[in-house]
Amino acid sequence: MRISTDEHVADLARGMVFLGTGGGGDPYVGELFLQAELHAGRRSTLIAADTLADDAFVLTIAGIGAPTVILESLVSRRTMLELVHRAETYFGRKLDALVSVEIGGVNTLFPLALGAALDIPVVDADGMGRAFPRLEMTSYGIMGCRATPAVIMDESGNLMMVNAASDRTAEAISRSISASLGAMVWGAFYPMSGRELKEFGVHGTVTQAWEIGRCIREARHNSEDVVGALLALLNQSGRPARLLFKGKVVDVSRETRGAWDHASITVAGSSGICKLELQNEFVIARRDGKVLCMVPDMISVVQSESGEPLTGEMLTFGQRLSVIGYAAHPILRRPESLAVCGPRQFGLEHDFVPLEAL
Amino acid sequence: MRISTDEHVADLARGMVFLGTGGGGDPYVGELFLQAELHAGRRSTLIAADTLADDAFVLTIAGIGAPTVILESLVSRRTMLELVHRAETYFGRKLDALVSVEIGGVNTLFPLALGAALDIPVVDADGMGRAFPRLEMTSYGIMGCRATPAVIMDESGNLMMVNAASDRTAEAISRSISASLGAMVWGAFYPMSGRELKEFGVHGTVTQAWEIGRCIREARHNSEDVVGALLALLNQSGRPARLLFKGKVVDVSRETRGAWDHASITVAGSSGICKLELQNEFVIARRDGKVLCMVPDMISVVQSESGEPLTGEMLTFGQRLSVIGYAAHPILRRPESLAVCGPRQFGLEHDFVPLEAL
Repeated sequence: MRISTDEHVADLARGMVFLGTGGGGDPYVGELFLQAELHAGRRSTLIAADTLADDAFVLTIAGIGAPTVILESLVSRRTMLELVHRAETYFGRKLDALVSVEIGGVNTLFPLALGAALDIPVVDADGMGRAFPRLEMTSYGIMGCRATPAVIMDESGNLMMVNAASDRTAEAISRSISASLGAMVWGAFYPMSGRELKEFGVHGTVTQAWEIGRCIREARHNSEDVVGALLALLNQSGRPARLLFKGKVVDVSRETRGAWDHASITVAGSSGICKLELQNEFVIARRDGKVLCMVPDMISVVQSESGEPLTGEMLTFGQRLSVIGYAAHPILRRPESLAVCGPRQFGLEHDFVPLEAL
Repeated sequence: MRISTDEHVADLARGMVFLGTGGGGDPYVGELFLQAELHAGRRSTLIAADTLADDAFVLTIAGIGAPTVILESLVSRRTMLELVHRAETYFGRKLDALVSVEIGGVNTLFPLALGAALDIPVVDADGMGRAFPRLEMTSYGIMGCRATPAVIMDESGNLMMVNAASDRTAEAISRSISASLGAMVWGAFYPMSGRELKEFGVHGTVTQAWEIGRCIREARHNSEDVVGALLALLNQSGRPARLLFKGKVVDVSRETRGAWDHASITVAGSSGICKLELQNEFVIARRDGKVLCMVPDMISVVQSESGEPLTGEMLTFGQRLSVIGYAAHPILRRPESLAVCGPRQFGLEHDFVPLEAL
């Protein structure tokens, strides 16, 4: 599949924000980057993982930091290209394809834009099928791939190589480097073979984001019930999706600490009060104290009228929201995955209960 | 010069604590490491920088973190050797010699022990003639050498390479990595040529530490006035030294934050109250509010009776101390040096005034 028009970019960005579950970064900067590549005549090519050779060399490219900071701290095309160049030098071979670590406005659009800039394909997969706040929270890592050796850069030309004893430590080191450099750095993580990506990836997720974005645009254009159309599409995936709550934002409290965004959002509606907790991504939704959905199941918010998905940093007092719960990819619900990205990993005092059982 | 006996080690360690000006780390772990090498029949060879070839390859080896942590978090010989091996691999050549970044219990004894372990000489020089809390505060850096590219490791096998846009940023990155890994990591910094070391180093400082340690031991053995003998020796260097204060510790308040030790020590004596401020090293001494000595001039404390030098973390209520001021090496008093390691770099509201003018 070729990404070639501004409409493609807009659909993709919209779907990525939805699957980004409140995090993954504001897509604005990524959209500009990808649009600029397309306007310059380059194309982003999306390929299925099974078209890769087993010994292909694949990397993820991701920003590590506080999503709010991306809006203030731009990154240049030059830095992103330099990062790939440094990674190729460090690993001693040319990249065959890029892949995303997560689905989110920044960390999926940037690899797509870079793929266009470098004329290498981007694999239709990621390591979560959603966004997560920590580097070790990927199917790649859970199933046996390592996040490091990794190459990390920032816009000021600082360059770091990290080879951590564990992915959890890789996250701690990368996060602390990010905090020391203004809360946003860019890294080439999870060096993988084609075979590893086929086996360890969550597949088809870029396409899914594209379909979600297209569905929202078309339903809106046809004056349909956008949220209803979106729920119907999601339920076709074989994983349940449901409307958790509908209401108006009455309180947002927000804090950026340690290169992470934390927020608590209160939504009031006719069926009560819904509280959403955000740690870069939404981690739990409660209605009047009762849990509606918890991580790794996905909590996304869209504007009730337009169906436009919103990231955590876009939320403000007075917005009318629909909160959607969507079952995580089955990989993430396995016991070994819950030990890495289950509710207790976010400091929540809950064992995981699937959305459909709540 | 060959360091071969336990008495050599003890003299060196004592002198290093003195020149470490309250910081530089407790020498205990370094002494054990160096003694173990000597007991195994290896020898530490100290050479003058001018015996190095101009194109010799020299590195500093230093711990980055909170000195208090070294007492709890040991580092293995294996890790130190691995660090040198990784650095040699990264830089693509064998080390010709090691040198210290600073004079202090840890960061000078470790290179000496490593030199013995690897059978390579250690240069009789450092980058300060004392200890300083920040990586960029060296004559190497001030005169044009860069602290990075550097290789950093910890005892758990985490490995990092850092190439920072400035030495100040190198410090921020290294410090944050240290904080994320338990407040102590080990690094190979300031890759230098023999010519650079000859030009940029503060020379003869390991020998000076050795002489200070020997002077204290001999004066004590001969029941002389140890502090008096020490001051006489220091004044022979052509840089003034003086007794700033004599008294008893009446208060110590201490805090480890952000991989740094901070402390405030109050000493009461017949001539008033003396306050010492520590930021890993002593940065200012005041008597009844009047400044007695300030960084980069050196403030060291010794036990009044025995003349035993003490690091900041050894200070406790009730100790009888003599506080000694000693003029910094002339390199550190230059305007370009004061911009890097002068009082304002430590948050003090003073322009530098030399010890002899106070």
